[in-house]
Amino acid sequence: MNNGQRYEPLTVPKRVILGPGPSSANPRVLRAMSLPIVGYLDPAFFEILDELSGMLGEIFKTNQRAFAVAGAGSAGMEAGLVSLASPGDTVIVCSYGYFCERQIIMAERIGFNVVPLRTEWGRSMDPKVLADALDEHPDTQLVVGIHAETSAGTSHPIAEFARLAHKAGALFMTDVVTSLAGCELKFDEWDLDYAYAGSQKCLAAPPGISPVALSERALEYIRNRPKPPSSWYLDLSLIADYWGSDHVAHHTAPVSMIYGLREAVGMALNETLETRWERHEANAAALRSGLEALNLEMPVPESDRLDQLTVVKLPEGVDDIKLRNQLLNEYSIEVGRGLGKFAGDVVRVGLMGESCVPANVFALLNALEKVLPEHGFEVANGAAMAAASSQLAMKPSPIYSV
Amino acid sequence: MNNGQRYEPLTVPKRVILGPGPSSANPRVLRAMSLPIVGYLDPAFFEILDELSGMLGEIFKTNQRAFAVAGAGSAGMEAGLVSLASPGDTVIVCSYGYFCERQIIMAERIGFNVVPLRTEWGRSMDPKVLADALDEHPDTQLVVGIHAETSAGTSHPIAEFARLAHKAGALFMTDVVTSLAGCELKFDEWDLDYAYAGSQKCLAAPPGISPVALSERALEYIRNRPKPPSSWYLDLSLIADYWGSDHVAHHTAPVSMIYGLREAVGMALNETLETRWERHEANAAALRSGLEALNLEMPVPESDRLDQLTVVKLPEGVDDIKLRNQLLNEYSIEVGRGLGKFAGDVVRVGLMGESCVPANVFALLNALEKVLPEHGFEVANGAAMAAASSQLAMKPSPIYSV
Repeated sequence: MNNGQRYEPLTVPKRVILGPGPSSANPRVLRAMSLPIVGYLDPAFFEILDELSGMLGEIFKTNQRAFAVAGAGSAGMEAGLVSLASPGDTVIVCSYGYFCERQIIMAERIGFNVVPLRTEWGRSMDPKVLADALDEHPDTQLVVGIHAETSAGTSHPIAEFARLAHKAGALFMTDVVTSLAGCELKFDEWDLDYAYAGSQKCLAAPPGISPVALSERALEYIRNRPKPPSSWYLDLSLIADYWGSDHVAHHTAPVSMIYGLREAVGMALNETLETRWERHEANAAALRSGLEALNLEMPVPESDRLDQLTVVKLPEGVDDIKLRNQLLNEYSIEVGRGLGKFAGDVVRVGLMGESCVPANVFALLNALEKVLPEHGFEVANGAAMAAASSQLAMKPSPIYSV
Repeated sequence: MNNGQRYEPLTVPKRVILGPGPSSANPRVLRAMSLPIVGYLDPAFFEILDELSGMLGEIFKTNQRAFAVAGAGSAGMEAGLVSLASPGDTVIVCSYGYFCERQIIMAERIGFNVVPLRTEWGRSMDPKVLADALDEHPDTQLVVGIHAETSAGTSHPIAEFARLAHKAGALFMTDVVTSLAGCELKFDEWDLDYAYAGSQKCLAAPPGISPVALSERALEYIRNRPKPPSSWYLDLSLIADYWGSDHVAHHTAPVSMIYGLREAVGMALNETLETRWERHEANAAALRSGLEALNLEMPVPESDRLDQLTVVKLPEGVDDIKLRNQLLNEYSIEVGRGLGKFAGDVVRVGLMGESCVPANVFALLNALEKVLPEHGFEVANGAAMAAASSQLAMKPSPIYSV
């Protein structure tokens, strides 16, 4: 019924989202997105902020500051860079993937003396590389290292990076966009200064808001730096003041995104973090068993890989773009393309948050089994499904409760 | 039914939001916010972006670039400043309100040679002030002037500002956060270079995304400037490239916010812009008649004032904070506080988008009639309602169709 109006209500396709992010959002989170708007200076909204701030503290495992930057994960990235060092300062950026390179681009634009530490894609970085660089650059203000590199599917020893940075008198910031709520992360115990995440990955909220944690040490630096950050919108001290007990007005807060984030974080805490980490581990193990039964290779060694994001090498002769289009158009399944050094050679399969359920593992393995032979890559019928199923049977998959 | 879980679904109070923004969102817009997530590089999502870009072009009345910055209106503000001039450049900022002062703060942080032109709050700025400043600073790269100043409730002759800026070889950017879809705005005809808005005012979408229009001339400048903008997240050329026909990946787009914005813009176009402007005019006229019947003063002269936002002087003895708390707690009505030079002396009443309906005019006048005598300010019983009602009867209020 559109009564002759030009624009009827929007409709969108239903996808099985198994890319690097966003992942699907839970129906309870989507319902919260449609709650009525309240003012961003309304005391009732401050109550929501206060509750959410405490809940985010549990997710990050911190008693320091936890709040959200009003933008994508990349806004959380830039907020950290622009706030935690001043133009001309030496900033060491560990680089083993596409998003590390984005950090380098941002850092150069801000005007830091950037020291990129480039190590092999698809491998965890050896902390010794950082230790040597810090010896060479004793005046370093900030060290940047990503926890879970979504482009390369790798995990990195950020607690050790933080220890080395502090030993040299530098701050340490990290990217936990893909790791938060999907695998172990302990902000206070690991002594991190700033960690930024995305809402749209293991937290299963829509994309567009970046949950962050900030140490008192880092906040102290921002408040006392010689000149304020070149960005007002992304100044972490101003954002922290809006989320703090005085709720000092800054920009208009994204009210609906905060509703959705609150609901997603509440559901993660209902599930408990530990159960959620196990769920990501169990489904990833099932996926890998299935991929191995399809004779597909995973370039990241077991010790270095993520559960949230699995990099799969495309066999000789399999066309990257055609394969991804087939999965999307014939099975409504989205997987991610390779980025940077992996471009064209791999697909990336995310199993995060709401997308991380056995049904999706089977849906993807079934689609691959049907599609790969069309590219001349023969696979044994049913072997992948059987392998995934038997892997899941080894340990009951934790229930994803709403 | 929470099954013993820690966090039950979020609930929020229902408010009559008559502050400076956000305003209420239409139920159809809120429904769109809860649609399933699709990937930000999904061809189905690109179709939504392409459609929305054209629709925003109609709203801004431009055939040049129209898209959205992933953040609050202040993100749209900073994106323009950081993109349209380089550190060290001379930037003239017209200042007649709180948000002009925010532009000055941002401009100084970026490192421009900032020339603030401060004129009287509560009055439209005389373009001659700008003409003189441009004579004095012939090397000006960028002129900044707000169309509708939400803190002062004033409208400003931006078409004339743009003409003067171009005559001097400068670019012209403007803030249409409160004006877009609420009063006449013609991006191409007025020859503007950049205009940023908010989603949460006359467009009646949730806050958190900033619709913008950008001239080809301005885009050309960004692409050829000696050094890229210091911000990567807010670089308008990168954002334009994601919204352009090649859809070059930038940050992860805020999928749900874009759904909501599309729905809100579609409803504005269904209503037609001209009818929507009339609706804002008619309800503001009714409000002003009612306020006059209450013997309340409006400090902005008729020629300079906005329909979207009415500044009301508090009579001697009326306590600002107590009054606003009473309206919120006893009537669930939010009005805005005074900012800057108006702090403590006024309240600001917004009638924007979904909030801009006769029922809300009556609800507020009724509440003021009941509350003001408690502050010792006597008012005639029923006079305000009668005045507003007879003003609306002079011309039928346009129907707000969904």
